[in-house]
Amino acid sequence: MNLSKLFELLESEINKDFTKTKVLEYKSPKEMIEHLDLDIQNESNGEKDLYKSINKYLSGSVDTAHPLFSNQLWAGRNYPALISEFVTSLRNTSVYTYETAPAATIIETYMIDMLCKKMGFKEGDGTFLTGSSNANLISLLVARNTLFPEIKSKGLSSLPELCFFVSEHSHYSFEKAANVLGFGEDNVIKVRADENHRMIPSELELSIKNSIDEGKKPFYVCGTAGTTEVGAFDPLIELQEIAKQHNLWFHTDGAWGGALIFSNKHKHLLKGIENSDSISWDAHKLMGIPLICSVILLKDNNQLLPAVCEQTSDYLFHEHEYDDLDLGKKSIQCGRRVDSLKLWLSFKYYGMKGYEERINKMVSLAEYLNHKVNSNPSFELLAPTTYCNVNFRFNPEFDLSLEEINGINLNARDEMYKEGTALFNYCYIDSKLSIRFILANPDVNTTDLDNILEIFQSKCEKLIALTV
Amino acid sequence: MNLSKLFELLESEINKDFTKTKVLEYKSPKEMIEHLDLDIQNESNGEKDLYKSINKYLSGSVDTAHPLFSNQLWAGRNYPALISEFVTSLRNTSVYTYETAPAATIIETYMIDMLCKKMGFKEGDGTFLTGSSNANLISLLVARNTLFPEIKSKGLSSLPELCFFVSEHSHYSFEKAANVLGFGEDNVIKVRADENHRMIPSELELSIKNSIDEGKKPFYVCGTAGTTEVGAFDPLIELQEIAKQHNLWFHTDGAWGGALIFSNKHKHLLKGIENSDSISWDAHKLMGIPLICSVILLKDNNQLLPAVCEQTSDYLFHEHEYDDLDLGKKSIQCGRRVDSLKLWLSFKYYGMKGYEERINKMVSLAEYLNHKVNSNPSFELLAPTTYCNVNFRFNPEFDLSLEEINGINLNARDEMYKEGTALFNYCYIDSKLSIRFILANPDVNTTDLDNILEIFQSKCEKLIALTV
Repeated sequence: MNLSKLFELLESEINKDFTKTKVLEYKSPKEMIEHLDLDIQNESNGEKDLYKSINKYLSGSVDTAHPLFSNQLWAGRNYPALISEFVTSLRNTSVYTYETAPAATIIETYMIDMLCKKMGFKEGDGTFLTGSSNANLISLLVARNTLFPEIKSKGLSSLPELCFFVSEHSHYSFEKAANVLGFGEDNVIKVRADENHRMIPSELELSIKNSIDEGKKPFYVCGTAGTTEVGAFDPLIELQEIAKQHNLWFHTDGAWGGALIFSNKHKHLLKGIENSDSISWDAHKLMGIPLICSVILLKDNNQLLPAVCEQTSDYLFHEHEYDDLDLGKKSIQCGRRVDSLKLWLSFKYYGMKGYEERINKMVSLAEYLNHKVNSNPSFELLAPTTYCNVNFRFNPEFDLSLEEINGINLNARDEMYKEGTALFNYCYIDSKLSIRFILANPDVNTTDLDNILEIFQSKCEKLIALTV
Repeated sequence: MNLSKLFELLESEINKDFTKTKVLEYKSPKEMIEHLDLDIQNESNGEKDLYKSINKYLSGSVDTAHPLFSNQLWAGRNYPALISEFVTSLRNTSVYTYETAPAATIIETYMIDMLCKKMGFKEGDGTFLTGSSNANLISLLVARNTLFPEIKSKGLSSLPELCFFVSEHSHYSFEKAANVLGFGEDNVIKVRADENHRMIPSELELSIKNSIDEGKKPFYVCGTAGTTEVGAFDPLIELQEIAKQHNLWFHTDGAWGGALIFSNKHKHLLKGIENSDSISWDAHKLMGIPLICSVILLKDNNQLLPAVCEQTSDYLFHEHEYDDLDLGKKSIQCGRRVDSLKLWLSFKYYGMKGYEERINKMVSLAEYLNHKVNSNPSFELLAPTTYCNVNFRFNPEFDLSLEEINGINLNARDEMYKEGTALFNYCYIDSKLSIRFILANPDVNTTDLDNILEIFQSKCEKLIALTV
């Protein structure tokens, strides 16, 4: 197999000069369909067409490694992790048995142990899985089956309605999990948060009492460490005390904020996380590991296996001296990609210190952007910046309606997207459209941020001229 | 970034001469821990150590691309799909919104539509997901929420026990799904199969009646197209008739056997699949796409979205003209890797015809191995070969106990594994240890199969000399 075209492609992508490229070449869905030439023929299209199609995919995609991509909670490129991802595909194994995935089994076991210890779980357990939506679901499953072991065989139908508590700013995966697990979405109780988006402990107490009065059976509380929208950290210790009084499972959704455990400077935001029963964390977010790299961690190493394991697959799980190591028994997946290699190798490459510096840099950049926004009278901060989310809007001193301001911010943002200048996201905070800028790419610098703000402001000003 | 080491590695792996390499260099867990040098330092280990560790991973792993690897339902290397996997990691996006993943959204939508049409679903729907264990779970979720829509908000606690029916030879993911979804494992009713491992329709009828008598509420039947152990195909049409009489959802688990839809010669084994309500299929099995590449397909395109969607994530799903295309709403994941690119590009590369030839070749090789086993008096076939699974054991004309024969077969197989000669799996059929040889790698030839059989037989004969 002649690999020269592949090497050319990798060279040009990995060593790209982003000052000369856009975040994307926008195409409407109709244009994209034409661009891609989707049809599959009966005959082989061969090598030449393969690279033609690959180039169409590349030019039709958002370049998430570009410093001006800031739309999601992940961005940028982690070089050793990218190379490891290639290596993972070369060996293409499934991490269910030691027999089929010996090195991967040892690496995953080591990484889970390392992460547990970092989080403060001395005898913890866990597994890599398909994202924190899945991790949150597994935390609910393990809590449910640990507290009510008969559910595993008998199901939920003879039990009272089980309910659980999350912040009103928690991730939407909890509704999905309540649906999947058979609790029902109505049994996700949203607890009120303060103006900084942190769950209010007294409101949790109240919600628990109300649910008991309604005849429901509370069993689980989730504190969020780094909310999706503003990056708020719930007061874990106060919430844990209440959970403990009521004998409820306590989960910390650290999908986004959990990375701070690697920063001595900032890990105080996670204070109390070691007293959680379970923790979700996505290494594919702030640490830049290619999607997907995600774990669920459990404080007690006797819970995961009985909550998910079944014993009828003798074609897969055998009885050799090494079969106790088989990780498939702890997973609700059967075939499962090796997601631990890229995390392990990027930790080794950068060292603990390298990751700490990376994280501290991202928080500093967020502080810088926060400062720039705050010192510009045309901008308004919409939430305090405690982590890597900066929420603001353009709001000049004109007499404009909420709808008009929202429209101007949205249109300016969308124009930049369609021009390929920059891609950042937005959400609504108290009905105000909030530009949600995420700092997750360590190759971003302050000049990039200055430029984006300047372009955004100038677009908004042009739009305002059309409005007033 | 200097990429010469990466290119060297890719060259040597992709153009490897497998006649000169082993399937693996076996190491015990203890040896593997030493081999890998797991520790993460505080300081950076840098580029040189990265490739050292990568080489340790490669040499510590089973080479699943090797022609003598036959342990799982996947094997070999699909070149265009491997390259596409690299490209997927380069763009590293999540296929939840058109904004962030425009090309991937269009490709996934096209592929789901193409696969639906191939299966005979004229107006179908579906999604890529994390494997057929997940696909089977989603089929149960969509069935449950379509037939009992109030469960999504209210949960299962006020309903009678819902139960469903699978073959006694169905995949173990159904127990896991029953646990996760809150039905309970006891509500997976295993239906008896005939001596060819095909579910017996009259037994399904009986099981349904019994469950109703016990006060349970049946709602779903799964027919397996290609069982994990022997590759049996349930009689879909007869089972569907019974399901229809009782108004039950009918799912076909085609994780392994679904690929036959691309072979005009063999697709008769899937007769009736077009009348299923849902189908699971893993493209990472017979078609050699790198893990994971898996879909759930639904006959009715009005069911998936309402069964899984929730509406509270305004930070992610917006209201632009292209937002209707957002695939995240149909998934229980949030972040989701692009798994459609590698399937699309490998279809384009080989063409429909190329895949048909690949599949026909694998079935022919299974027939060849079946013939070789059958014509050798020292071997005994343990199940008829209808697909790519060949089940047999060494069973010479000596007076040996079941335990002795099982032990000889197991030890011979394990010796070959530990020597790195070949890796194939085993299961138990009526307490007899059965060597389960899977034909999934199109680079295997008849000489490879002759060699494996010869080595295996000679090992068994040596072991028998020690026994008698």
